[in-house]
Amino acid sequence: MSLFITLEGPDGSGKTTVTKNIESYFKSKQIPFVLTREPGGIGISEKIREIILDVEHDTMDDRTEALLYAASRRQHLIEKILPALKEDKVVWCERFVDSSLAYQGVGRGIGMEAVLSINLFAIEHHMPDVTFFLDISPEEGLKRVGKRAAEDRLELAGDAFHKRVYEGYQEIIKNNPERIVVIDATQSPGKVVHDIIDVLEGRFGL
Amino acid sequence: MSLFITLEGPDGSGKTTVTKNIESYFKSKQIPFVLTREPGGIGISEKIREIILDVEHDTMDDRTEALLYAASRRQHLIEKILPALKEDKVVWCERFVDSSLAYQGVGRGIGMEAVLSINLFAIEHHMPDVTFFLDISPEEGLKRVGKRAAEDRLELAGDAFHKRVYEGYQEIIKNNPERIVVIDATQSPGKVVHDIIDVLEGRFGL
Repeated sequence: MSLFITLEGPDGSGKTTVTKNIESYFKSKQIPFVLTREPGGIGISEKIREIILDVEHDTMDDRTEALLYAASRRQHLIEKILPALKEDKVVWCERFVDSSLAYQGVGRGIGMEAVLSINLFAIEHHMPDVTFFLDISPEEGLKRVGKRAAEDRLELAGDAFHKRVYEGYQEIIKNNPERIVVIDATQSPGKVVHDIIDVLEGRFGL
Repeated sequence: MSLFITLEGPDGSGKTTVTKNIESYFKSKQIPFVLTREPGGIGISEKIREIILDVEHDTMDDRTEALLYAASRRQHLIEKILPALKEDKVVWCERFVDSSLAYQGVGRGIGMEAVLSINLFAIEHHMPDVTFFLDISPEEGLKRVGKRAAEDRLELAGDAFHKRVYEGYQEIIKNNPERIVVIDATQSPGKVVHDIIDVLEGRFGL
């Protein structure tokens, strides 16, 4: 079946682990699927992402950053997500529009409305069917991330930034109660995935 | 004085020659000025522009292209145009928002409203004080460009594309009669520059 699922959450919320477990689940159920996260191996999107994350680009303006994320998202959508949906696959994508609303809109302080407008230009009507938000406090998330080294401009942005990002996510969740399902990410990895699968089975009969 | 001037026109309308002559004029009048055109030597903008123009990027979606132009524009504005205006200089910029409205909005067929919205995100309220449009038919312009080799993805886009771009410019001119001054670009280079200087002196006392 054609189904567009996105996974969101602050840094350190466990997105990578969840995605690995979901992969096993899709395989065991023989569901045709594509797992991805921007830039997803798409050449143009990869090159855009390199510009965004380059630690030498310390003069990058916040709005430049937001436009580059939207451009990378667009190309990834066109080259990878839409073709998979057209082949009746389930697409599981780590981070999508909500990340930009939280990170650029609120974290960077551009404003959610403005960042939404350029993202709607980028994705047109292709919003996810369902979004799972891995809920963990920014403090706890950063503690987990601390165990690995900060790797790029975004991870280096500081605690106050990540706190605003979390508040941004809370606002998005409040505004999209139908689409976004909040999952307690402080639970064991097994329980987290169990909660997600419950929703996929109950709501979409996967 | 702080004054933001842009120069627009189809390929082959003679923008580079005009800019050279304007430079002599500013120098002779001892007017502090900056001449620029995106990406204008700004590192981040240059890297974005490389992605746009790379002939290998033949899968690039039109909306990706429009977002990348807006991102490059934003960074060039922040790092080069606004600082010069703040120092009370005259800024002369080859191509700006109108180019995106004509090339991406109409030429690529995305729609002018949509492309304007992402460009307003990029430039906020910083519209040019005056814009000179070098008016030449697309056929005549392309004939002139034909004398040099097509160098990038945009110049390779075909005659029908460039015809739509010209029609796009006509619509922008109609909608912005105060800001945009149409200059007959089929005249001699000397006469073209003379017409532009007339407006600069008459309207802004340069």
